[in-house]
Amino acid sequence: MAEVVEYEVKVLDKGEVKLINQMDQGGDYGVVAAARVSNGVAYDKASKGDDADFKLISYLMKHRHGTPFEHNLFTFYIKCPLFVAREWQRHRIGSYNEVSGRYTEFNAQFYIPTVARKPAETNKQGSVPVNNKGADEWLETEIQRWSLAAHVEYKKLLDFGIAKELARIVLPLNLYTEFYWSVNARSLMNFLSLRTGEDAQWEIQQYAKAIEPMFFDVMPFTYHAWVNNGRIAP
Amino acid sequence: MAEVVEYEVKVLDKGEVKLINQMDQGGDYGVVAAARVSNGVAYDKASKGDDADFKLISYLMKHRHGTPFEHNLFTFYIKCPLFVAREWQRHRIGSYNEVSGRYTEFNAQFYIPTVARKPAETNKQGSVPVNNKGADEWLETEIQRWSLAAHVEYKKLLDFGIAKELARIVLPLNLYTEFYWSVNARSLMNFLSLRTGEDAQWEIQQYAKAIEPMFFDVMPFTYHAWVNNGRIAP
Amino acid sequence: MAEVVEYEVKVLDKGEVKLINQMDQGGDYGVVAAARVSNGVAYDKASKGDDADFKLISYLMKHRHGTPFEHNLFTFYIKCPLFVAREWQRHRIGSYNEVSGRYTEFNAQFYIPTVARKPAETNKQGSVPVNNKGADEWLETEIQRWSLAAHVEYKKLLDFGIAKELARIVLPLNLYTEFYWSVNARSLMNFLSLRTGEDAQWEIQQYAKAIEPMFFDVMPFTYHAWVNNGRIAP
Amino acid sequence: MAEVVEYEVKVLDKGEVKLINQMDQGGDYGVVAAARVSNGVAYDKASKGDDADFKLISYLMKHRHGTPFEHNLFTFYIKCPLFVAREWQRHRIGSYNEVSGRYTEFNAQFYIPTVARKPAETNKQGSVPVNNKGADEWLETEIQRWSLAAHVEYKKLLDFGIAKELARIVLPLNLYTEFYWSVNARSLMNFLSLRTGEDAQWEIQQYAKAIEPMFFDVMPFTYHAWVNNGRIAP
Repeated sequence: MAEVVEYEVKVLDKGEVKLINQMDQGGDYGVVAAARVSNGVAYDKASKGDDADFKLISYLMKHRHGTPFEHNLFTFYIKCPLFVAREWQRHRIGSYNEVSGRYTEFNAQFYIPTVARKPAETNKQGSVPVNNKGADEWLETEIQRWSLAAHVEYKKLLDFGIAKELARIVLPLNLYTEFYWSVNARSLMNFLSLRTGEDAQWEIQQYAKAIEPMFFDVMPFTYHAWVNNGRIAP
Repeated sequence: MAEVVEYEVKVLDKGEVKLINQMDQGGDYGVVAAARVSNGVAYDKASKGDDADFKLISYLMKHRHGTPFEHNLFTFYIKCPLFVAREWQRHRIGSYNEVSGRYTEFNAQFYIPTVARKPAETNKQGSVPVNNKGADEWLETEIQRWSLAAHVEYKKLLDFGIAKELARIVLPLNLYTEFYWSVNARSLMNFLSLRTGEDAQWEIQQYAKAIEPMFFDVMPFTYHAWVNNGRIAP
Repeated sequence: MAEVVEYEVKVLDKGEVKLINQMDQGGDYGVVAAARVSNGVAYDKASKGDDADFKLISYLMKHRHGTPFEHNLFTFYIKCPLFVAREWQRHRIGSYNEVSGRYTEFNAQFYIPTVARKPAETNKQGSVPVNNKGADEWLETEIQRWSLAAHVEYKKLLDFGIAKELARIVLPLNLYTEFYWSVNARSLMNFLSLRTGEDAQWEIQQYAKAIEPMFFDVMPFTYHAWVNNGRIAP
Repeated sequence: MAEVVEYEVKVLDKGEVKLINQMDQGGDYGVVAAARVSNGVAYDKASKGDDADFKLISYLMKHRHGTPFEHNLFTFYIKCPLFVAREWQRHRIGSYNEVSGRYTEFNAQFYIPTVARKPAETNKQGSVPVNNKGADEWLETEIQRWSLAAHVEYKKLLDFGIAKELARIVLPLNLYTEFYWSVNARSLMNFLSLRTGEDAQWEIQQYAKAIEPMFFDVMPFTYHAWVNNGRIAP
């Protein structure tokens, strides 16, 4: 029975991931208990020792028995740019509540990249660093300048008396947003599998990589079995 | 931050409901925090006192803002007859792991009703008690006798060497099964709304009614707001 | 057996909704057939005439028997601003495929509002028209100018050699995007219920109102029963 | 644009699978169109010829881009024994409407196996044929006799005046039921993957194998790409 592990990790220039809630009796135990109910084993007698438990979890993972991994829920607080949130919220097995630009005036917080990236030659959607300090500085200055200008424009509309929900439409996709995300371990593994992958955009990769050790810490056997399974979710 | 409330309630003649897991920081707080993130309020500052919190939850319920109720997960252990489990598992927003008759030899546990019920006159699917002690006793004896015969038949097939997965097909729908059910508060309210209703079969009503006070105990504000909303889930 | 009805409706200044696909044997018939299988009625004999069918559909709607409405799938093509798409894609019971700014260079298409809106006095998230021609013109000019500037900035980054996926982060939320949306009738009614409501932002209301007659045309009995039910989805 | 293909296949002794509905413009075209919207290609210009289309579908399958496969919905009519339906309905991404034993008196239709199966030595949940004609005949006679007795018992309770919903609890798991199942191609591939597998019970395998050619016929490219991908759903 795990005690609550609270994590807080900084991501990108102003982003953040926090694990704010999970099951009271969480961890790998929930997986093992759910799987062994097939054989009529009682909840409080579900563990058969670490070796047998890890072996069972590995078997479930390999044979795509996914449901035992659904009894563990994680709630994360996420602060990320809008273009990252747009990709994130396409994952439908999970629950989202987000700050609303209709209710709330946005702060002047924008993601300012510090590394210029150019199109990858081998992957038509991907990108690689330009590896040129001058280019990096040019990009950083440019996006910084543009973001400030966008915030000025937003404030100008608000000052004129335009409603928040309408004024926000001038804000760019590098604006930071905040949301809660509740996701079970099965769906989380699918997210990590796809979003830590090389095909994912660099910025969302950083978020997925920040979450991965939190998942490991709460469910170490499940984590290892997932890695051994080629990071494919069951 | 609620401490874990563990409940165990007997249902029907041999059935059971136990609340075996929930969120570490569960209760109404999760709803309030998820709703107030819309306004950019931090997780640990989400409560504005009981009155304001209850008012917010009532507002969400009435206006069908359902997502804040999805961050609370409950895991129940259920022991119920197969015909009840069949209705239960049609609720798709939730996770199930069940004892398998392919792996495990079933015990001789059957639901034996003690009240004879006849077709309702006003509701073509429903039923009402016959209100005749002789009829009650006749039914109880009949189903008891039949259940024992079914178990004898099952054992006969097993003894002949038939595989468990095939032998089980002679077992009747009043056989008890066991499963874990993880469900969030939003989906749970939908279940309770439908399955405590008069249209539901009497037996599944008993299960829903057994779960209702567990839900109340963990999320009292949400429970009251749901009742005030005519027991309609958001 | 409805023939394919193809609709195309313009929304906002450059937006669009098209119904591009639906069930081969769609319409209200699917609802009626799915409901009557409860009574063992065969698929090709499911209709009992318009009056009985409409009465059945109304009963299902009122008593929240939602599953018979899930056998009808609609695929829509949607062209809408990003801030509308963000709200839309929070509806999780449905399937989305969207143009990707990682692969594709965006056109210079932006939503330019022609009516200035100020905060509503009675609803902290809503807005009402300013009703001042000068304000309308000021807003239109301002957003037009800003959108062009944003597109220039985007092109500047692309011309410098920045990857599309990174350059897009300067684009504002009034940029048009395009996606396909497949949704069943039950989930569609929930969408229409919430997004034609007064609480919804004016722009997404226009999309929901554009879709409503398409739904009516394909499933007229279901549509009327839903309206009679206070536009509450089952 | 596929014409409607209606299939009807007999399964087991009295079972059946029928494809009763699908998309008006179904087939592989929907997958290709949904995938190419990423690149901003219009719906009616989505095909680039068979070779390019098949290559694209194979790429999506291999790289687990699953959403383009969600725009194709299939509605099947299924007649199968209760123990098969119980396994089937655990697949949650799909819609079910089933004949109700609360409303409807069941016919005396039971699955009578003609091949005795014993526990597999290598797989604790599985089974293999006994390969003994005497054993086959013994089992068939035994289950035939038991099923008739169960139906007599059911009728006895009904004749006494017991409500249908209560009388049905004496019926065994080899009773036939009927339901409609609407499922998208992505979820269907997952079903076929798991239920045609050797680990699945023999009876549900027969249903999955009956459905497989219907899927092939409507979406031949998708089918082949799925087979080439080791029958793993994206």
